[in-house]
Amino acid sequence: MLPRPSSRLAEALVVGADGAGRAIQRPVPEEVPVSLVYSSVPFAVMMLTPGDLEDFAYGFSLTEGVVADAAGIREVAISAEERGLRLDIRLAPSDLTAHLSRRRSIAGRTGCGLCGIEELDQMPRAARPEAPAPAIDVAAIRRALASLEASQPLNDETRAVHAAAFAAADGTLVAVREDVGRHNALDKLAGALMRGGVATGAGFVVVTSRCSFELVEKTASIGARTLVAISAPTALALDRARALDMNLVAVARRDTVAVFHGMDRVTEALRA
Amino acid sequence: MLPRPSSRLAEALVVGADGAGRAIQRPVPEEVPVSLVYSSVPFAVMMLTPGDLEDFAYGFSLTEGVVADAAGIREVAISAEERGLRLDIRLAPSDLTAHLSRRRSIAGRTGCGLCGIEELDQMPRAARPEAPAPAIDVAAIRRALASLEASQPLNDETRAVHAAAFAAADGTLVAVREDVGRHNALDKLAGALMRGGVATGAGFVVVTSRCSFELVEKTASIGARTLVAISAPTALALDRARALDMNLVAVARRDTVAVFHGMDRVTEALRA
Repeated sequence: MLPRPSSRLAEALVVGADGAGRAIQRPVPEEVPVSLVYSSVPFAVMMLTPGDLEDFAYGFSLTEGVVADAAGIREVAISAEERGLRLDIRLAPSDLTAHLSRRRSIAGRTGCGLCGIEELDQMPRAARPEAPAPAIDVAAIRRALASLEASQPLNDETRAVHAAAFAAADGTLVAVREDVGRHNALDKLAGALMRGGVATGAGFVVVTSRCSFELVEKTASIGARTLVAISAPTALALDRARALDMNLVAVARRDTVAVFHGMDRVTEALRA
Repeated sequence: MLPRPSSRLAEALVVGADGAGRAIQRPVPEEVPVSLVYSSVPFAVMMLTPGDLEDFAYGFSLTEGVVADAAGIREVAISAEERGLRLDIRLAPSDLTAHLSRRRSIAGRTGCGLCGIEELDQMPRAARPEAPAPAIDVAAIRRALASLEASQPLNDETRAVHAAAFAAADGTLVAVREDVGRHNALDKLAGALMRGGVATGAGFVVVTSRCSFELVEKTASIGARTLVAISAPTALALDRARALDMNLVAVARRDTVAVFHGMDRVTEALRA
């Protein structure tokens, strides 16, 4: 499988307020239909940025509940098809059996969390972990945010892709993944963490986007207890973070962060 | 059906660099699972901001290819379920027959465009219209962008939702719809245009987001030939705009816009 670039130069005509046009070339991110096939059975087609596709295969399989851990996947093969890419994911026999028996009832569930499901009672629900969420260290979050700004090469080039990162408790970045889709970026991160055997309970996830319900679900399925989002949460994301008793930090900026759940776990916060 | 608010006040603790915490209340947008049911047959569950739900029912049905026009829908009923909302969409008999016969092959296809489909050859393809795309009037685009800034009440409140708007050829805004999801905002807009019987060939669509493949597809299915996006396009979105010979204007700012396809249709652009 030949590697595919994650961006392409596009020509554009920049037109200013005075009507003057200037031809430019601008890198735009690739977006490719990727077909996920489990042991020869097609499951879903996702649009994503080519790059870190093995990570995506692992992470998507985890956050969609196809496997419980990296041992459930025996092999990932990437191939090119006429209209996109194909990920052939070979499951361990017991995971394959479980997947095929679930298959009928969740046909089509995909990375957007809910789309593909047909009825409300099929909605996913991550289990609430037994261990309490860790403390929220705002200095560590600030450290991670500052590092993340310098760790998004595709976004530096295109200004058009999201990142998802995992930081250790002290704010040191452990892994960063980028994609045109914020759900995909988080799935790629999940896969990188699984494949690396990274313990996720004490550190935190950072996403460069608003925080929807599904990002909370995915963070929980990764085993992380703290989600930091650059932008605001939805009300439902907040409800889920409360139900899972996760730390939810949002509107995260260099100077301030807003803690939406886990306020009593903030270290060193002096109430004004 | 009682109207549901589109946002809710959430408590948060804002923590600054000095560790000082300040309790605030911030409006966060609602995000609700909405089940779409065609003539008693469940089709998909989408996460969206409650509001303009009838528009969403019409627009989603159009952009997903369930109906070809507003006449295909006889009635939309909104009801509350335990975990979300339900849209019961009664189709005209011929549309229902066609929908049910397609049903098996596209089970679960939803508003994200591709998720839910299982194989690459099920990918959607809007037809290329016969009429040529209209001229790109940068002054009109600038006018629409300026008006749009003052026409996003939910985003003014929450800073966390997208808008999709349709402007007449001179830049006058005809309709604006908001949602936590950019695809949903465009589907709501599509429904508003259908229900209002608005001719879409000469005006343009504006989205406050980056421009993915699916937004190009949806714009084409609305019958509009010009898409203006605040942020950058993906390479695939650009490929599709070229194949459909649509005008694709992106990175649209108050001072400049970048024309990615349809450069030769820009009016009054003086090449520098």
